[in-house]
Amino acid sequence: MSSENILDLTQDAVALTASLCNIPSVSLEEGPLADAVEAALRGLSHLSVTRDGNTVVARTDLGRSERVVLAGHLDTVPLTEPANLPVHREGDYLVGRGTTDMKGGVAVQLRLAAELTAPSRDITFVFYDAEEIADEHNGLARLARTHPDLLAADFAVLLEPTDDAIEGGCNGYVTVLVHTRGTAAHSARPWMGHNAIHDVADVLARIERGQLPDADVDGLTYRQSLSAVGISGGIADNVIPDHAVVTVNLRFAPQWTQDQAVSYLVDDVFAGLETEVIDRSAGARPGLDRPAAAAFIEALGLPVRAKLGWTDVARFSALGIPAVNFGPGEAQFAHADDERCRVDQIVAAEASLRRWLA
Amino acid sequence: MSSENILDLTQDAVALTASLCNIPSVSLEEGPLADAVEAALRGLSHLSVTRDGNTVVARTDLGRSERVVLAGHLDTVPLTEPANLPVHREGDYLVGRGTTDMKGGVAVQLRLAAELTAPSRDITFVFYDAEEIADEHNGLARLARTHPDLLAADFAVLLEPTDDAIEGGCNGYVTVLVHTRGTAAHSARPWMGHNAIHDVADVLARIERGQLPDADVDGLTYRQSLSAVGISGGIADNVIPDHAVVTVNLRFAPQWTQDQAVSYLVDDVFAGLETEVIDRSAGARPGLDRPAAAAFIEALGLPVRAKLGWTDVARFSALGIPAVNFGPGEAQFAHADDERCRVDQIVAAEASLRRWLA
Repeated sequence: MSSENILDLTQDAVALTASLCNIPSVSLEEGPLADAVEAALRGLSHLSVTRDGNTVVARTDLGRSERVVLAGHLDTVPLTEPANLPVHREGDYLVGRGTTDMKGGVAVQLRLAAELTAPSRDITFVFYDAEEIADEHNGLARLARTHPDLLAADFAVLLEPTDDAIEGGCNGYVTVLVHTRGTAAHSARPWMGHNAIHDVADVLARIERGQLPDADVDGLTYRQSLSAVGISGGIADNVIPDHAVVTVNLRFAPQWTQDQAVSYLVDDVFAGLETEVIDRSAGARPGLDRPAAAAFIEALGLPVRAKLGWTDVARFSALGIPAVNFGPGEAQFAHADDERCRVDQIVAAEASLRRWLA
Repeated sequence: MSSENILDLTQDAVALTASLCNIPSVSLEEGPLADAVEAALRGLSHLSVTRDGNTVVARTDLGRSERVVLAGHLDTVPLTEPANLPVHREGDYLVGRGTTDMKGGVAVQLRLAAELTAPSRDITFVFYDAEEIADEHNGLARLARTHPDLLAADFAVLLEPTDDAIEGGCNGYVTVLVHTRGTAAHSARPWMGHNAIHDVADVLARIERGQLPDADVDGLTYRQSLSAVGISGGIADNVIPDHAVVTVNLRFAPQWTQDQAVSYLVDDVFAGLETEVIDRSAGARPGLDRPAAAAFIEALGLPVRAKLGWTDVARFSALGIPAVNFGPGEAQFAHADDERCRVDQIVAAEASLRRWLA
């Protein structure tokens, strides 16, 4: 363990956010930050701490009737050139890599971990690695495979930036290739062949007809969509093409399983066409009917809306744990070169969660 | 000049075709064959011979009231592996690289050059290089630039394979890119952007509406067409694409100039869309109203049809010389691995042209 980075959990959440940001932790390089977080947590006698790669889990074990997870990822997207670190203050904002995505949230987790020595619900704090890169590296996914017991809970909050709102569950998605097949011919004599690109008109018309209405799930409204996200075809400028392919992305509300969503595309929208599913992921129900969730919403008193983009809350949902996103920061600044976070949102998020868990 | 290859112009046209094929002459490697052709022609006192690169021109100069061109290319597409040479006989066919495209036609040219010492019309025989590859190498195009005087004539016959018919003129073509522009967004929130691939539906619908009817030019019927020959778009499976492009190929009858054809696409079919012309070539009118052409058709007594694919007749047309395709061989065997030519077509083509020119 490195002794270079000491995190002082008694400083306020804004100052702690700055300290966390100033330990760079681009995906796959989270070691120094994970070391610092682990060291800080191991100094707290009311928590039992587990290290798994660069993921750190800290749990209270007070025998409460409910257990909740507060989760956040330690990694960031790459720094800019020149580096957008160390962070600095600009008016109401803390500016620099990681401020909004999501070291403000991690600072709130650490403050609550240090100060809530006797919370009303048992708490599992999860600080995980490699959220910003391919699934295979994701620390939360790894933990769900290797130590699902460490994640067991009645409800989970992922502290991704939600701009002063609560975002429940998330849409699932399916990506399919839709192939059209024709017969090649010289383009001087197209009637000797069959043009596969011309058949793409039918695929696009089916996408238009296949749009899905809004869906209400557990009291939240999920907007659904069907989009062509890629298209290719053609052999040469003098050849009638014998093949074209459209990549189509469906975002479906979490009242459907993955299989239902796939069936909608394959057996309904593109029935009779050649389809190939290349990616799919389940959505997550918000589970706002659970007692811990209802108490959370009542304690925070903030607007609740459906999450449309897929997030790691779906990993909790797959474990049977309803989950929401709630954390400081505005999503529009995530990954941006001028990444920044309003400091009052960091302070307010800590206060809200403390109100719920004290 | 190589002394290795001696062409005997007294042998019959079928045997001469075999001799020509057995001197391999893949594009840019026509030197040995051009040497042999030049040597054979220089032995004929009624012809004046000019060599330009690997192009050979031989002309009678009898002061006739009309002059006609008989033209053919010396090169072939690459051999197969193992090589489809030397040629061999299979029933009614001579089989091997170059038999149909177009050494049968070159053999007919050489036979006529040797034997028609006092033709009814002055004749310019053109044997040119690099027809099968990019325009910049084409020997006929080079000659038209550097020695247009050598090509001056009232009518031209290109001895490309036409399967016992006369093919008049040729269609022109225009290739345009049609761009659609949108606004990128995350595919979880497509309504925040504008999907450029979805706009391709309009481009494809315009192609369908923009099909042109058959056109009669100088008594021949030209079938016209408009085809999407390429399509591409897309950034990533989770991004609404901000750009797509369709490559569209128009084949237009030779009553239109290139500019008229471009205007049809840009100002009519795709009016209001972003277009970019990337390739274009004029067609060629068949010119069947010229006396030399009328005599040609009468002498041959063969069906006359419009040529749809672009050919080098358009280079004559650009010089103001009406031109037709007429030569032994079936187009379907051109470039084929089992390239072959019916021997009776070689004999008949020589007889037909001799009837016209004797």
